[in-house]
Amino acid sequence: MRGQIVLFGDSITEQSFRQGGWGAALANTYARKADVVLRGYAGYNTKWALFLLHHIFPLDSVKPPIATTIFFGANDASLSGKTSERFHVPIEDYKKILRKIVLHLKECSSTMQIVLITPPPFCEEGRHKYLKSLLGESAPELSERTNEVTGQYARACVETAKEMGVLSVDLWSKMQETDGWQKKFLIDGLHLTQEGNGVVYQEVIKLFNEAGLSADNTPLDFPNHSEIDAKNPEGTFQQKCF
Amino acid sequence: MRGQIVLFGDSITEQSFRQGGWGAALANTYARKADVVLRGYAGYNTKWALFLLHHIFPLDSVKPPIATTIFFGANDASLSGKTSERFHVPIEDYKKILRKIVLHLKECSSTMQIVLITPPPFCEEGRHKYLKSLLGESAPELSERTNEVTGQYARACVETAKEMGVLSVDLWSKMQETDGWQKKFLIDGLHLTQEGNGVVYQEVIKLFNEAGLSADNTPLDFPNHSEIDAKNPEGTFQQKCF
Repeated sequence: MRGQIVLFGDSITEQSFRQGGWGAALANTYARKADVVLRGYAGYNTKWALFLLHHIFPLDSVKPPIATTIFFGANDASLSGKTSERFHVPIEDYKKILRKIVLHLKECSSTMQIVLITPPPFCEEGRHKYLKSLLGESAPELSERTNEVTGQYARACVETAKEMGVLSVDLWSKMQETDGWQKKFLIDGLHLTQEGNGVVYQEVIKLFNEAGLSADNTPLDFPNHSEIDAKNPEGTFQQKCF
Repeated sequence: MRGQIVLFGDSITEQSFRQGGWGAALANTYARKADVVLRGYAGYNTKWALFLLHHIFPLDSVKPPIATTIFFGANDASLSGKTSERFHVPIEDYKKILRKIVLHLKECSSTMQIVLITPPPFCEEGRHKYLKSLLGESAPELSERTNEVTGQYARACVETAKEMGVLSVDLWSKMQETDGWQKKFLIDGLHLTQEGNGVVYQEVIKLFNEAGLSADNTPLDFPNHSEIDAKNPEGTFQQKCF
């Protein structure tokens, strides 16, 4: 009946249905028009996400998604040799895997709109404060990520999107255009505030609109109540749904 | 992979993914465990909803929902002979159709948890203020609904749930236990504030928990990141997903 918009990513996707979340906002925008399907996996990097790909996007699906957002990189960009080393994926591997994911989705459907989203910027100070509030004195002194390295992954993500001819949101750059992005958009140096979620929503919806997927142009699955002939609803539904 | 929880209802369901909405809150609670599917139709009464039933819940589905909320009645309870007459469904018909919907869902799946939700209480004063702000002097003087009549539909809904052996939320009574429910829970005399959405969420999740459907007891669809062997992720995913 309706198309599906799949949100595939890490914790920033998994948390996108929290209060003010970008996923919930998309679901609200596309209510009665498309289903927004949450496939966010906290802590996952692209290497691990690759194991889920064929499960979430089976090649033999009779109804592949009309659009998919791919939002990984925040974990891949963890530094090697630090506390979060296990999440680290070398940048060349990150690019290779993004390519694999895009190729797989293109194989699923030649009409699917594919949007790569870069990791958001990272704030070392915000992250350290958060970890200290959580772990006290045992919080690591050295940051497990840096904004500079995360930026390298963001550029790799945008480059890959260009190479592959798919859409991208450069969230890392976009957020840093706003003064005070560190606290305005990030809760704990890494995850998004409601305002940060708002940026993701705005950027994604802008791309969807440009790609001809705007909610305004997507038909309702069933008649608007104002179209229903109250004296002969059978007539309306026979005409519109069968 | 995951079960589906379908939210079937009128505008109060359709709007449930707005900021602070009860649908989005359910989707967040069941992230990685079940998909919350939005099937809300603004302006619909049970009579019109009946035309959608076989489309939304096909009897030959290989994977029927694990739970469904049925949340109609606010439109059915519109008074006949007033401006919203076209939405009116006589109370005996309302009960009959609710029974039909429940029987259909039971035929879809004998294990589906079915939750009937009554309409929320109605505030004539709040509604009149809202309509006046919208329509000015042409706002109708006589209310198109009353709280008393809506209460009759709410009781009919709870009775039907008992007769049919399914769960119910008596939202009409629950909300009126709180002083100032008129403004605390209702935006415009009819639709829900964020706090009103919170009541629906709390009541539904309480029933799901009691019915053994709690998110805590529902397994993740794929391994938690902490379970992944970073040196041999293949091993983890082979063991957990194939």
